[in-house]
Amino acid sequence: MKEWVYGRNTVRELLKNGKVSQILIQKNTNKDLMDLCKKYKKTFKMSDKKELNDLVGHVVHQGVAALVESYDYASLDEILSSIPEGKTPCLLMLDGLEDPHNLGAILRTCDAVGVDGVIIGKKRSVGLTSTVAKVSTGAIDHVKVAQVTNLTRTLDELKKMGYWAVACENERAQDYRQVDYNMPLVLVIGSEGSGISRLVKQNCDINVVLPMVGHVTSLNASVATAVLLYQVYNSRHPL
Amino acid sequence: MKEWVYGRNTVRELLKNGKVSQILIQKNTNKDLMDLCKKYKKTFKMSDKKELNDLVGHVVHQGVAALVESYDYASLDEILSSIPEGKTPCLLMLDGLEDPHNLGAILRTCDAVGVDGVIIGKKRSVGLTSTVAKVSTGAIDHVKVAQVTNLTRTLDELKKMGYWAVACENERAQDYRQVDYNMPLVLVIGSEGSGISRLVKQNCDINVVLPMVGHVTSLNASVATAVLLYQVYNSRHPL
Repeated sequence: MKEWVYGRNTVRELLKNGKVSQILIQKNTNKDLMDLCKKYKKTFKMSDKKELNDLVGHVVHQGVAALVESYDYASLDEILSSIPEGKTPCLLMLDGLEDPHNLGAILRTCDAVGVDGVIIGKKRSVGLTSTVAKVSTGAIDHVKVAQVTNLTRTLDELKKMGYWAVACENERAQDYRQVDYNMPLVLVIGSEGSGISRLVKQNCDINVVLPMVGHVTSLNASVATAVLLYQVYNSRHPL
Repeated sequence: MKEWVYGRNTVRELLKNGKVSQILIQKNTNKDLMDLCKKYKKTFKMSDKKELNDLVGHVVHQGVAALVESYDYASLDEILSSIPEGKTPCLLMLDGLEDPHNLGAILRTCDAVGVDGVIIGKKRSVGLTSTVAKVSTGAIDHVKVAQVTNLTRTLDELKKMGYWAVACENERAQDYRQVDYNMPLVLVIGSEGSGISRLVKQNCDINVVLPMVGHVTSLNASVATAVLLYQVYNSRHPL
């Protein structure tokens, strides 16, 4: 399946990765992308604002769109078998995340800290869309994402394999800096509105919380995820 | 202070956030907004094109205007004098941040970790808008934000008062975990597209960088800010 994606950063990353089958650039814009097309020997078609709007809708396409193979999900098995021998695995489970900006930013962070794979549910969750791709600035091509029917069952399977499930969750939680993350890990993050669902929560081994000294009671989901993932990274790669 | 804002999308957002004190809708237009007013139990007044033009000027108001509380900026002096005696100050300077979602998420994090104030530029920067307010989930009412004409000069003033300017910047940078943040601090974050501007960069004392092991070359601005601010918090409040 193919779909149109848009935005300067997205297309620039795609050019480097070679997943594009067609590129449209609005005339008198994006000279740098035209040069990049030449460099990577990709042909592009001169277009205009109207044609781009017709293709991708009235979004901030920044004068460029590309037709790409749509984003593929991995299976959980593919993720697990891709983890190098000897590496302590780190997976991320997103329970009901709804905002494509959050998922895009999270994939970017996952690529940065070397998360082995992301697990999302099939229901009530944002999937891999072109907005997610754009916000991820290309990370979507490097981070494996599995979509599963039942998060609780998946968590159960992982725990049987020796994974520890660490939830970002206020109830009965300890400070996130108290936990040793040097173990096969699946970090569980809840939805923006209502956190982690009850059954998934019950299946987690440890709850962690970020210290907060102000008035708001929670952080943005992609922000909280990043602070936790960098803590995992730091505890595995101390200075 | 109150101000008139206009446009269908703006007013629709404001209705959901509930900061509107008066709404004018041009008759025979915007039936959907009238319904939304009823849903959110907000009264509106039927108006005409002339009255709307008189209120907001000859702009594309799309037949609707609303009177809202505008978000107040603090002065830099107000921020500095609000810092409790004995507390090591922590300020955040945002150089050219453009995305209201990022600013909103950053204000939320600032409230959470107790940042004393945020400094933004007057030009080419997102200010305190209703989208920022919404994304900040109320943090906008608790975190002082100063808008200054010249970021470089402000940085210079702060440095004369004993502040250290720490930039999130790749050039000549050290790992962010190597720095002791137990000093009067102004953390400087650049724009989403082009980072910190040249003059501001030249005025910073220390550059820090987050380790990144993947393919993407930068993190989302609100994500990078949060990881750094939590590092500051952690170095000041060790377990």
